[in-house]
Amino acid sequence: MNEEKKMVIVGNSKPLLNYVTACITMFNSGARCVVLRARGKAINAAVEVAQLLKKRFVSHLEISNITIDGENVTSRDGKQLNLSVIEIELSMPN
Amino acid sequence: MNEEKKMVIVGNSKPLLNYVTACITMFNSGARCVVLRARGKAINAAVEVAQLLKKRFVSHLEISNITIDGENVTSRDGKQLNLSVIEIELSMPN
Repeated sequence: MNEEKKMVIVGNSKPLLNYVTACITMFNSGARCVVLRARGKAINAAVEVAQLLKKRFVSHLEISNITIDGENVTSRDGKQLNLSVIEIELSMPN
Repeated sequence: MNEEKKMVIVGNSKPLLNYVTACITMFNSGARCVVLRARGKAINAAVEVAQLLKKRFVSHLEISNITIDGENVTSRDGKQLNLSVIEIELSMPN
């Protein structure tokens, strides 16, 4: 069951390691599955966070699913933007 | 069979539409499957190209697989870099 699915929203403003530690904290507190979600220019940060986690911290972590999608967002000045979204599902094997 | 798998390398230097038309040309010339590949900061461009193709040009296109990986690259000044890589597999249903 994936009742313990948690989400980490990855942005561009903070250092990547913040998101890495957020994920590790969630796994340590019992989550089996953490989803990294990012939009627009933060997409490559999300991919890097997943890679960092897998290569440096939790080598048995599995990237169980990746989806991409688009999202319509209205910016502050009223423009319609079409942003890409990525969701990377990380799961901890039993 | 995926013998007709073609690859489009997405970078940051050209307009997104160039990659979109490259994919469309490949599908029109008979490819069943095109892989978009990008590294580092171009990753979000690859995701945008996939979204553009699906939303604006070929609505029945399927995003059949997405993988992320890391790659070690030696830069011009001799430094070792660890770049993230994404591969987005697009396929045209029969």
